[in-house]
Amino acid sequence: MATRHVVVLGAGFGGLSAVKHLARDRSVHVTLIDRNNYHLFQPLLYQVATAGLEAPQIAWPIRAILRRYPRVRFWMGNVDSVDPLDKRVWVDGKAISYDYLVVSVGSTSHDYGIPGVRENAIPLKSLGDAMRIRDRVLSAVEEAVRTTDPARRRALLTFVVVGGGPTGVELAGALAELKRHVLARDYPEVASEEIRIVLVEATDRLLGYLSPSLSAYTRRTLEQMGVAVMTSRAVSEVTPFGVCLRDGTFIPSYVVIWTAGVTGIALPGLPAGRNGRIATTPELYIPDLPDIYVVGDLNGLEQDGKTLPQVAPVAMQQGAWAARNILRRIHGKPQLPFRYRDKGNLATIGRKHAVGEVKGLRFSGYLAWLTWLAVHIYYLTGFRNRLMVLSNWIYSYFTYDFAVRVIHHRHQFPCQAEEEAVPAQQMLETPTD
Amino acid sequence: MATRHVVVLGAGFGGLSAVKHLARDRSVHVTLIDRNNYHLFQPLLYQVATAGLEAPQIAWPIRAILRRYPRVRFWMGNVDSVDPLDKRVWVDGKAISYDYLVVSVGSTSHDYGIPGVRENAIPLKSLGDAMRIRDRVLSAVEEAVRTTDPARRRALLTFVVVGGGPTGVELAGALAELKRHVLARDYPEVASEEIRIVLVEATDRLLGYLSPSLSAYTRRTLEQMGVAVMTSRAVSEVTPFGVCLRDGTFIPSYVVIWTAGVTGIALPGLPAGRNGRIATTPELYIPDLPDIYVVGDLNGLEQDGKTLPQVAPVAMQQGAWAARNILRRIHGKPQLPFRYRDKGNLATIGRKHAVGEVKGLRFSGYLAWLTWLAVHIYYLTGFRNRLMVLSNWIYSYFTYDFAVRVIHHRHQFPCQAEEEAVPAQQMLETPTD
Repeated sequence: MATRHVVVLGAGFGGLSAVKHLARDRSVHVTLIDRNNYHLFQPLLYQVATAGLEAPQIAWPIRAILRRYPRVRFWMGNVDSVDPLDKRVWVDGKAISYDYLVVSVGSTSHDYGIPGVRENAIPLKSLGDAMRIRDRVLSAVEEAVRTTDPARRRALLTFVVVGGGPTGVELAGALAELKRHVLARDYPEVASEEIRIVLVEATDRLLGYLSPSLSAYTRRTLEQMGVAVMTSRAVSEVTPFGVCLRDGTFIPSYVVIWTAGVTGIALPGLPAGRNGRIATTPELYIPDLPDIYVVGDLNGLEQDGKTLPQVAPVAMQQGAWAARNILRRIHGKPQLPFRYRDKGNLATIGRKHAVGEVKGLRFSGYLAWLTWLAVHIYYLTGFRNRLMVLSNWIYSYFTYDFAVRVIHHRHQFPCQAEEEAVPAQQMLETPTD
Repeated sequence: MATRHVVVLGAGFGGLSAVKHLARDRSVHVTLIDRNNYHLFQPLLYQVATAGLEAPQIAWPIRAILRRYPRVRFWMGNVDSVDPLDKRVWVDGKAISYDYLVVSVGSTSHDYGIPGVRENAIPLKSLGDAMRIRDRVLSAVEEAVRTTDPARRRALLTFVVVGGGPTGVELAGALAELKRHVLARDYPEVASEEIRIVLVEATDRLLGYLSPSLSAYTRRTLEQMGVAVMTSRAVSEVTPFGVCLRDGTFIPSYVVIWTAGVTGIALPGLPAGRNGRIATTPELYIPDLPDIYVVGDLNGLEQDGKTLPQVAPVAMQQGAWAARNILRRIHGKPQLPFRYRDKGNLATIGRKHAVGEVKGLRFSGYLAWLTWLAVHIYYLTGFRNRLMVLSNWIYSYFTYDFAVRVIHHRHQFPCQAEEEAVPAQQMLETPTD
């Protein structure tokens, strides 16, 4: 039997999972394409953004992963488009032919058309985003120390996180700890209560995919940590100087982080999906293009009437499943429909606090937090990164320190002209801390 | 007695050493100014450049160091100029007055007026430089895999280090190990002997400040590691496509690292020095400006007829000495002349290989290497960074791995037009490997 060439686009959780399963079979060779040379462990991105971890510790070189797979090659490049008719993909102007294609390019931040989000808010999807947030937060406090304008100082010391999903909650919690344990000690020029962390969520509760009691626990814990939690408050615009809410409130801030939503990355040549997600058959291929499989955040498959969540476990299970179906086809066996097995959900809020739901069982607090730590170390790729992240966590646990406070690129915050200033009565009241 | 205000420019080895000594005395308060928010441990920069260490592990937040000194404040900013008449410094357009000033702004890469160095070679002085080198080296190998042009592939796989001082030797050695233990395993598409590391030195031996037998040992060791060592070869130009030597040889290369020399950073308002170094009295102040002390790389003081080397131990001793002299003046005591106490020199070549000279005693090999490791861990700032660097080294020692192979910014190498191509007979022969 002639070998078949499978091209996998994207080395995230879905793509890597597909590669690992495909690599076992001698009848295929695989080309994995990614614009980065590393696999990014996105669930810990917020710790890079808040100076807890070094960026490379959650990024593992793809070639190091592929060393053990002799029939898999890596190609670093940007995918320009897919050409399903000629069965090839274009990467940086070069064509690569495939017999089967696994599309696992993931998702990008979604602004829902709200003005100013793209220009003035920072998403948290890439290593660059996380480092930009770290640079921006630390630069803001440095500048707040030097400015003589009290309104500017106030805005520089206000950090707004938009989106009350797991990323927003984890980020707001980590910022609150950075403030309490690090910034308060590092900046004798700043009173701790001057630093404000605001979490804005459009629906009426945080972590809406968990049960209401866990949402309430999450909110209570964040508020005890000093986060101002605003639910049922939608953002109408983000300006260079702050966030406008739909009810007219303006929150002056120079660092706004956008975690309110994601959308699948569109690839020219593939059908446009609903909400940026491509509908596939239960076997995970595109109905009219049976050689193209879509897995992960980009896949819009419904299960029990709901589209699947855009999380790592779905991507990993779909990647493996698509690989199995491709191999079954090659070996003349019928394909099997995919079914997501939900192993549970976990989100951390801060030191010793997390929430989780596994098969209807709810848990929160210290035990949930330990489970969260264990699960994340287990799924982190690379023995060395596990070692380094664990060392960092143990260090931070005992010292209360977030040590990676390095500003790589000092951010220059814009100056605000007098006429742009917002009337004082419209400003947000300082939340009690 | 009224408190005096001492301003320290630069948080390198010299500036920090001055701050630590000044902080002990209740009669002074200190403002430390640096454009970065971290103290950089420059001796290990080459390991960041070669994927051995994460950047933040050799950068320690200045504010973390200053926590224990209540009379010291930090100001992050760029020093525009010094105004000795009004006794103030200008930082980002703001004036800061001083009673005494310690100038410890260090040195920058020096190109000796050789064309193209500034534009096409990368120095190794800052964290940004080190990350740029890492990005460039890894991007070059990734592109070499994809190119179909053999000449371009050859140039992409050639890394040229200019300068046979400790930085050049350490960097060339680390690149050779990266090639042997990592790149050879990561890139099945590239034969190990295709990757070439060339070390170019203008004088007739490497590490010229050590005795000739250690220079010979260094050269032999590097050659055994596969580095092409070229001594008595001066660079006449660096182009986007390679290095021209004065004898007419052209070495095609897209990654040229310049470690051939440094010069003191000039500050407007201070006297220009000879070779970029300001001559001071033996008490370390500027003859006509007795309130301004200059320490470290910028200080051009001679001792026994020779200017002092631009290394960390000189800066540390001078920083402490300048602080002591300022305090003596404040307390009405006479100042004392500085004298450098040379504790010895060490340079590492690679795994298990280093050279050292302490008070006339020469040593090389495994023992020198262990000494080098111990000294660098000892002088590294911050318990946490010691822990992380040591973990990294232990990991690398046992696994032969350099794990930080993350490309943050993929480098786009320029295309070479046909007419710019260099005749083949002028090209460097492949060194035996």
